[in-house]
Amino acid sequence: MWPSLKTLYLSMINMPDLNIIALQLEGLEETIIYHLIERVQYRKNSVVYEPGASGFRGYPRKSLMEIRLLFHERMDAQFGRFCVPEERPFSGRLPRPRRTVHLPVYPLALRDFNLVNLTAAIKQAYTTLVNIICRDGDDGQYGSSVENDVYALQAISRRIHYGAMYVAEAKYRADPGRYNELIRTRDRTRLMHELTRKEVEARIINRVKDKVARAQARSNLKIRIPIDPESVLAFYRDSIIPLTKEGEIIYLINRREILS
Amino acid sequence: MWPSLKTLYLSMINMPDLNIIALQLEGLEETIIYHLIERVQYRKNSVVYEPGASGFRGYPRKSLMEIRLLFHERMDAQFGRFCVPEERPFSGRLPRPRRTVHLPVYPLALRDFNLVNLTAAIKQAYTTLVNIICRDGDDGQYGSSVENDVYALQAISRRIHYGAMYVAEAKYRADPGRYNELIRTRDRTRLMHELTRKEVEARIINRVKDKVARAQARSNLKIRIPIDPESVLAFYRDSIIPLTKEGEIIYLINRREILS
Repeated sequence: MWPSLKTLYLSMINMPDLNIIALQLEGLEETIIYHLIERVQYRKNSVVYEPGASGFRGYPRKSLMEIRLLFHERMDAQFGRFCVPEERPFSGRLPRPRRTVHLPVYPLALRDFNLVNLTAAIKQAYTTLVNIICRDGDDGQYGSSVENDVYALQAISRRIHYGAMYVAEAKYRADPGRYNELIRTRDRTRLMHELTRKEVEARIINRVKDKVARAQARSNLKIRIPIDPESVLAFYRDSIIPLTKEGEIIYLINRREILS
Repeated sequence: MWPSLKTLYLSMINMPDLNIIALQLEGLEETIIYHLIERVQYRKNSVVYEPGASGFRGYPRKSLMEIRLLFHERMDAQFGRFCVPEERPFSGRLPRPRRTVHLPVYPLALRDFNLVNLTAAIKQAYTTLVNIICRDGDDGQYGSSVENDVYALQAISRRIHYGAMYVAEAKYRADPGRYNELIRTRDRTRLMHELTRKEVEARIINRVKDKVARAQARSNLKIRIPIDPESVLAFYRDSIIPLTKEGEIIYLINRREILS
């Protein structure tokens, strides 16, 4: 369904500026950090990521984590989660919402929010992260492990998709002529250059590292497993930020001309 | 199903001592705190607690929070969550697990774990807490509010039921003769007196308050809503600790004589 002209007009009014968007992204850091800290309380439990090893009836080819993610998203879909632009589903063929969700007008120039969907890459990067941050071995706590995987994956995905869509739109609006040219020629290299602010990225990753350390500062290490702040810094630097920028490029390339 | 004699014998061997149990309870504090902090990012949104006001098809009499809790527990039940003693369901008539859960032998002398189920009181206390810790008003973020309600409720419930069952069993084993007498006469007042350690409770609530402050110490208050550490202290003091002790009494009164 294409938005009406009125919707498009409204959407131009409501656009938050880049400082507000950056603040929103900053606010999502705590959520990601809390969920990662919860996940590292359990061991790697690698078997939960092994396709076909779940022992869950009816899903012989999926891993336990994938089944939990699918069940969770089927539930979320009925509550209307994926009507929100930055909430992109990892699974396809989900049920429709069972409640009327009153949505604001989103200031995004996308025909279909799901054109920007980086969940496959997010799942891959996250599974690698689990291998780095969790202790080796198996504690049998498979249900708790995949439960926390789903919470962490959703928090990470929200941050990446929110950043991809809103940062790209805000930057586009600040200089439409320049971006139109780069979009027209599909110049990904120059787009990436245009979207990169090294000093902002450095500030983000150091702030995240600091938050991880602070969040754990009063935990009793006899029972709580700490997460290494450096590993979250590296995950932000090597996965979250690059995937956000990749999403910005996808957003811009799929941006509807009518708004420009 | 009654446990076999062998199970009962094994269960006596595996009992963790009171220090280990206290450490487990301490480790659950972070989980509760993180989820409460996430919930206060949204406003009260009182309509989500109003029966019949959900707008969710098929559930005309429940509140949106109750529907979310029911859907979440239906999912959890299929993954085997409620096979674990301290994971007591808020809802009845849940589906059976769809995977084989390999459970340890629990050192608890309870015929049915669900004999100790304080979820009704927990839901009540939590809803009152939301009213205290969240900002007034409605931000339309109903889905996110009830999602975080469910996470917080489950974390609080786990803490209370774990404490109720394991602390009671450990204390019983330390002095079976004394407890048998109090259980026989159903002397709740003296049981409560026996189970109360004022200095331990004071240590817990102050530690929790301190953890709340530390967890938020690096958050940017332009975007993150802080939770008042005093309100979490009060919730521990007035709800979590009393409900845990209430659960200990229920546990002891339902304790199976065969183990004593």
